[in-house]
Amino acid sequence: MNNIVGKTIEVIEEKELREKLGSIAEFTGAVYKIRKMSGFSFVIIRTARNLIQCVLDTSKCSYEELCENACVRIKGMVRKEERARAGFEIDILEVEILSQPAAESPVVINNKEVKASLETKLDYRPVTLRNHKERAVFKIQEGFINGAREFLRNQKFTEIHTPKIVFAGVEGGANMFSLEYFGKEAYLAQSPQAFKQMMVGVYDRVFEVGAVYRAEKHDTARHLNEYMGLDLEMGYINSFYDIMETETAMLQYSMAYLKDNYKEELELLSVSLPVVEEIPAISFQEAKEWIQKEFNREIADFYDFEPEEERLLCQLVKEKTGSEFIFVTHYPTAKRPFYAMEEENNKEVTKSFDLLFRGIEVTTGGQRIHDYHAQVEKMVARGMNPEAFESYLMLHKYGIAPHGGLGMGVERFTMSLLGKNNVREAALFPRDMNRLVP
Amino acid sequence: MNNIVGKTIEVIEEKELREKLGSIAEFTGAVYKIRKMSGFSFVIIRTARNLIQCVLDTSKCSYEELCENACVRIKGMVRKEERARAGFEIDILEVEILSQPAAESPVVINNKEVKASLETKLDYRPVTLRNHKERAVFKIQEGFINGAREFLRNQKFTEIHTPKIVFAGVEGGANMFSLEYFGKEAYLAQSPQAFKQMMVGVYDRVFEVGAVYRAEKHDTARHLNEYMGLDLEMGYINSFYDIMETETAMLQYSMAYLKDNYKEELELLSVSLPVVEEIPAISFQEAKEWIQKEFNREIADFYDFEPEEERLLCQLVKEKTGSEFIFVTHYPTAKRPFYAMEEENNKEVTKSFDLLFRGIEVTTGGQRIHDYHAQVEKMVARGMNPEAFESYLMLHKYGIAPHGGLGMGVERFTMSLLGKNNVREAALFPRDMNRLVP
Repeated sequence: MNNIVGKTIEVIEEKELREKLGSIAEFTGAVYKIRKMSGFSFVIIRTARNLIQCVLDTSKCSYEELCENACVRIKGMVRKEERARAGFEIDILEVEILSQPAAESPVVINNKEVKASLETKLDYRPVTLRNHKERAVFKIQEGFINGAREFLRNQKFTEIHTPKIVFAGVEGGANMFSLEYFGKEAYLAQSPQAFKQMMVGVYDRVFEVGAVYRAEKHDTARHLNEYMGLDLEMGYINSFYDIMETETAMLQYSMAYLKDNYKEELELLSVSLPVVEEIPAISFQEAKEWIQKEFNREIADFYDFEPEEERLLCQLVKEKTGSEFIFVTHYPTAKRPFYAMEEENNKEVTKSFDLLFRGIEVTTGGQRIHDYHAQVEKMVARGMNPEAFESYLMLHKYGIAPHGGLGMGVERFTMSLLGKNNVREAALFPRDMNRLVP
Repeated sequence: MNNIVGKTIEVIEEKELREKLGSIAEFTGAVYKIRKMSGFSFVIIRTARNLIQCVLDTSKCSYEELCENACVRIKGMVRKEERARAGFEIDILEVEILSQPAAESPVVINNKEVKASLETKLDYRPVTLRNHKERAVFKIQEGFINGAREFLRNQKFTEIHTPKIVFAGVEGGANMFSLEYFGKEAYLAQSPQAFKQMMVGVYDRVFEVGAVYRAEKHDTARHLNEYMGLDLEMGYINSFYDIMETETAMLQYSMAYLKDNYKEELELLSVSLPVVEEIPAISFQEAKEWIQKEFNREIADFYDFEPEEERLLCQLVKEKTGSEFIFVTHYPTAKRPFYAMEEENNKEVTKSFDLLFRGIEVTTGGQRIHDYHAQVEKMVARGMNPEAFESYLMLHKYGIAPHGGLGMGVERFTMSLLGKNNVREAALFPRDMNRLVP
């Protein structure tokens, strides 16, 4: 028997190399680019997060088998070089080739941008993501989630993982993917709504980062059929404004977190982080009327925004307040789900909100009905059969605090944050009506 | 327009109340238990993570509507009380009832244990999870994942989220759930294998915490059909021992993390954390022979362990070395997937391992083939059509570092860690052949 003791391999990148200025260092990476000069070559190495500029003296050794996308171990002298972006270069002493590609990249990935159509970029995703800018998108997405998670944990939220194979949708079955589950019909969850409400009865405050499935036949720049939801639900709220306050604080925290921990990627993609000191809130009806008045637009849909209206509202809010975010509150009851709580003095509207960011809706939230009888009554009024929701209604029947929550689409938020025009740019391996591969 | 500024509601629990000894405090929670005494009642309040003992002077005010599972806001004096577990009690001054249950709990949940069959516990999961011990299980699970995540981030792993709706399984379609996806046949991913290997080409080291689907018709105490996988994959390894070293270090870190941050839950469930100073490793063949010799057992399966053999092996290792973990290495090539790398000097075995913990397999891992031609050759030898794997093979074709990884079943690990007999005890809302609700 051997013994495994838990020793790890350190990843040496820009920061670690800078600490070794003037001495010899070893590190691994993939050859990103080779630029042949007279008598020497620049060899750019892609490490986990950086690009490291190395210099190979080709008059001494050419390493002919060295090519782009080869994976190598470099031994070299870390030399101060003011002209290099990192402030140093590596003079290569030895190269060990660890693996070789079988073919040249089908798309040029080592220029600043991948100059290809979105379709091509997605078809060759395992390769095009190797581009320094393409991969930075998902580091920022990781950073946003990490920031949100750290905030929520500080606020005593418990992270949960709920099943995605479900019996029936709390929000109905029309837009759900169905599958056969050992002889029964099952669905893919279109939100963790039921589970997160149940878990408020257990931990008071919960959140989940998980997949959400919508079988909607939307082929637009803003829809995915499988996406990542950041869902939270909290008990003991005084009103649904507490949910908006929590989301605002979460955004404040995660933007600061990105600034502190993902500086390099933010600079690389020229991201301007939004200011989130305060977020204005306006009622749905006021917003509709405002847009109508300012742009002389007829209202076509009295129950929801058209995408163009979301854009116009954000434009108005930005002009008037400087904010790139806007909460829209009190959506019509007719357009909100059966679990949405209505305003006591106006049953036509709900204690609900959406958050719009740079022209697009990124969050839906609100207060839920917590009283058992009120929930059963509303179900019946909507023609639903409460018996079919027996396990869901346990949370109300056996007591639950006043509560509410929200669901945020992570890819869509990332798209807006990075100023991308298509949500697919913010999904690692997007799933839409036409795309199932890779 | 209002302005939302990001103010949050503080959660007041045991720790915060202890800091207010001798003064008046306010907090919210659910009534867990009322114990009537002569002239007063003990009212136990369940907060997000604790149980708070309060005393209600019923000679002054009875609060007749106060019942178990009501959600309340308590105002009271924090009084030092040596006999109370927390070292203090709350003398109730005011109770505001925030919500009332519609019925009494169908299962007694406020004793130390929920005394009911597993079936009943699962049928009433939204209620039975409110038991202090039941909910502690998933706090510990959260803590294990958080510890592992913190470790992996320190080691420069990037967290990814990959799609669960896939075109075809890298490991074949027999045990996969299928669904109709806009007129095409799709499957639910039985592992993120292909994606995490692709992402090694992008970030060198990646991990994912996500759902894994197996349509296996196993109705046992150790199988779930939807479970949580902790998957990692890392490039630039020198051998598959580096993967085992990383897992060992991750376990060391996460056990220490649990000890530091989940002390209360560990004590509540009387969990003895395993010592992970070093983990012995033994080859599959040696292990088989050892068990055969020690227990006079005939070997029935030369390619895999029977569950009883896993149990016996762990027993032997514990007796001989004291370790509750054992790595078993070099599994037969015939039983490992097409992407497993074989030993150069013995093609019959792979550079692979399983980790066994307290009698059960909790991890499968190994080194993957990184050379394109070698991978295509092995596929062809297995009767697979490489053209059907074109997008998967991009990762090899366009160059990838020597790499490997592992997949761990989180519920199964939790089960072993907590000494549970059934993996369903470690799944919030388990999915098995017969259970799809709640």
